[in-house]
Amino acid sequence: MSRLDAILDRVDADITVVVERFLRFLRFPSVSSLPEGREGIRACADWLRGELAALGFAARVAETAGHPLVMAARRSRRAGPKVLIYGHYDVQPADPLEDWASPPFEPEIRQEDGLTRIYARGAADSKSQVWSVIEALRAWLEVAGELPADITVMLEGEEETGSPSLPAFIDAHREDLACDVVFNSDSDMWSRQRPAITTRLKGLIHEKVTIFAPNGDLHSGHFGNVAVNPIGVLAGILDAIHDGRGRVAIEGFYDGVDPVPPALREKWEALDLDEALCGVSVEGGPTEDGLGAVERMWGRPGIDINGIMGGNTGAGERSVLPGSATARLSFRLVGRQRPDHVRAVFRSFVEAHIPCGCRVAFEGAGGSTAVSVDEASPWIAAAAQALDAEWPAPTLIKGTGGAVPLVGLLTEALGVDCVTLGFILGDDAIHAPNERYDVERLRKGIRSWVRILADLPDPRTSPTRAASHLKR
Amino acid sequence: MSRLDAILDRVDADITVVVERFLRFLRFPSVSSLPEGREGIRACADWLRGELAALGFAARVAETAGHPLVMAARRSRRAGPKVLIYGHYDVQPADPLEDWASPPFEPEIRQEDGLTRIYARGAADSKSQVWSVIEALRAWLEVAGELPADITVMLEGEEETGSPSLPAFIDAHREDLACDVVFNSDSDMWSRQRPAITTRLKGLIHEKVTIFAPNGDLHSGHFGNVAVNPIGVLAGILDAIHDGRGRVAIEGFYDGVDPVPPALREKWEALDLDEALCGVSVEGGPTEDGLGAVERMWGRPGIDINGIMGGNTGAGERSVLPGSATARLSFRLVGRQRPDHVRAVFRSFVEAHIPCGCRVAFEGAGGSTAVSVDEASPWIAAAAQALDAEWPAPTLIKGTGGAVPLVGLLTEALGVDCVTLGFILGDDAIHAPNERYDVERLRKGIRSWVRILADLPDPRTSPTRAASHLKR
Repeated sequence: MSRLDAILDRVDADITVVVERFLRFLRFPSVSSLPEGREGIRACADWLRGELAALGFAARVAETAGHPLVMAARRSRRAGPKVLIYGHYDVQPADPLEDWASPPFEPEIRQEDGLTRIYARGAADSKSQVWSVIEALRAWLEVAGELPADITVMLEGEEETGSPSLPAFIDAHREDLACDVVFNSDSDMWSRQRPAITTRLKGLIHEKVTIFAPNGDLHSGHFGNVAVNPIGVLAGILDAIHDGRGRVAIEGFYDGVDPVPPALREKWEALDLDEALCGVSVEGGPTEDGLGAVERMWGRPGIDINGIMGGNTGAGERSVLPGSATARLSFRLVGRQRPDHVRAVFRSFVEAHIPCGCRVAFEGAGGSTAVSVDEASPWIAAAAQALDAEWPAPTLIKGTGGAVPLVGLLTEALGVDCVTLGFILGDDAIHAPNERYDVERLRKGIRSWVRILADLPDPRTSPTRAASHLKR
Repeated sequence: MSRLDAILDRVDADITVVVERFLRFLRFPSVSSLPEGREGIRACADWLRGELAALGFAARVAETAGHPLVMAARRSRRAGPKVLIYGHYDVQPADPLEDWASPPFEPEIRQEDGLTRIYARGAADSKSQVWSVIEALRAWLEVAGELPADITVMLEGEEETGSPSLPAFIDAHREDLACDVVFNSDSDMWSRQRPAITTRLKGLIHEKVTIFAPNGDLHSGHFGNVAVNPIGVLAGILDAIHDGRGRVAIEGFYDGVDPVPPALREKWEALDLDEALCGVSVEGGPTEDGLGAVERMWGRPGIDINGIMGGNTGAGERSVLPGSATARLSFRLVGRQRPDHVRAVFRSFVEAHIPCGCRVAFEGAGGSTAVSVDEASPWIAAAAQALDAEWPAPTLIKGTGGAVPLVGLLTEALGVDCVTLGFILGDDAIHAPNERYDVERLRKGIRSWVRILADLPDPRTSPTRAASHLKR
């Protein structure tokens, strides 16, 4: 048995204890966007530090202005590349809690559809991915007694809030972070059979809009026909965002968006989308000027309404004309779209729709730009080869509608390639109630990382390009 | 001093203890539309029964399929009319709780703007009105030793939920309720100076609409550009309810709506709306084909969005494409508009806007029709005369956007006139946080009822019409 096979074998043999450890990770309510998540974030970071220290890593909880990162490094005696692996341990809020079949931070295992599924907030996004990396490192160390390369693990606690502390942290720790390649583990597969490496990631900004009527809450019977209803105003604005052809009707929104090259479009159109959707229906969904679904998912910007609330949101009837109404939106950016510009044109658009007497308040700042990584990178080729060895179908080089601000920030700061790969699927219910992951993918994900680390190009012997292939 | 003056004087002299008793009434959380209100409703009904029994009334808590009524009757030794006085002791839910400066069921007195204001849920709608009647009865009994007429008090516990149990109750108790006139105390003044009798009341139906996407919650980054967003669908529907001229664009909605007669319109247009709005702004508010504000408030039907909710309504950012979105609406009806017809045309309208793959669920039933009472009724003339004696400006005969289902039900069942009068004002924040009422109006409201009861026409000596003057 080769050393690689022995390590892979160890993963298979240990899967039960691997799952036990993973469940411990899932029990931390590490919600980054809510004040009550602070304690869970801190406990989770401390625990991760301990886990990595136990594997012989020099591990620490690194403070930021917001939530801490867990930084851990271990050298190899072998001559190999310096590798930085990124993941995040924070999770989305779990509400609406009443829609969960089991409590979000008390993981539950269920046998379903021939799979062993683990239900918990973060079970997929992104604790499964972090844990796949850590267990791959453990398997390497336990069987081979050493790592195949110098490895630094960087686990963020603010990914789900748009990584606000990351730019300053990277700036202050350029030397610690210096490496030959970054692996970003926070990503998905194309389908259950087919792994993927993601080279196009969208930018992201969040915005909260509140319309205030000139009055507080009023009796809707008395004033409904004469006083303004901010829910109606908000509905009108949200409806006006798209024109009849499904395009965003906000002037300046598409600034910096280039059309997808015809050759790429052709490749995308050849893909079987149903395979990737894992049962998610696109019936009745948005369209845009006849563009294909894959192009819209990976190559076109979009505006999403993530939430809305106003007036009577309680259980009983209440004849109220509310004093305010609020929507939460997010914007997915591509190409050279700038967050500040998109935010500005959106705000102007909303302001132009506000009737006399009403006022609008916006909440939101920062955001990330889109990122593209050169598909010709030798790191990508090597990773694809490793994945091909593990999974039934060949690795797909793809885009995503998701955003991982880290990718742009880190590749820009360090001047290296970033290989984004992971094993999340479309029906894992990430960001939603009853988020889940299955033990089968956990096992194959760990095995994938074992293989990837075994087959890293050595920049000192093979001519990888030193410069970044980042296009923004 | 005349007997009437002595009774009025007693009201003034006792106002401090009157307020004390009123505060006790306000402390009951008698919310009719929420399951958790059941206990407060029951305790409030029992307490009211005790208060009326202490005044020598034969009082009981009368059960219904829903919340109970308090029924109390006391005969007079004088030959006079039989009078039925209606009020309701249930209140609207108090949420959003965080917007209250003091807890909604712990009444707080504040000196503001030269007034002594009492803040509590129900302080105006309608406990102040019920209490004005009860204290007027007390003053009569304490000073005169008897009532000026046979009086039955009927206090409902389901007015804020559309009076679902009232039709069956009235039907089963026609003999107990038989009377010469009904007074409905659940009403408002025109302005702080000018009392009013309301002869036009709107009908009301409530409807809850939920749009379900074919999927549950999804990651908005991954699926936002391809899967349907039910908030967006809902916003489009709500925006389409009105056309560019402010008319309801739902086919069949206006069936049964007659234009306001030109003479009446002229009278309405001569009113100073600002006086009645008490600072409520109509800036940016709805319009309808150039119709005046008073006409729209009293003579035109309308559709109000009372609440909306969907997706992320929490405090943190969450990149979710929600699985559903919900709106609560109410419809104010006039003339011969039928609740079942309006509900049906609305549902058809919504269904026509639902994209393939989505589905819609409606919740709502019943409702009330609009009611008009003949302005020439001698009961109205007598009440107006009594009010004129108490207030600085002459009584206005007016309409309202509000609905009191009782008025239509009772006048139809009993074949008598209903005089709707009360002392609520536009800035009492009814149905809203920080609802309030002032001691000055409480005192003058009690005095008004003392005067009204003193000057009732006697149907056995004066030729009042026996038949109902109800127009529906």
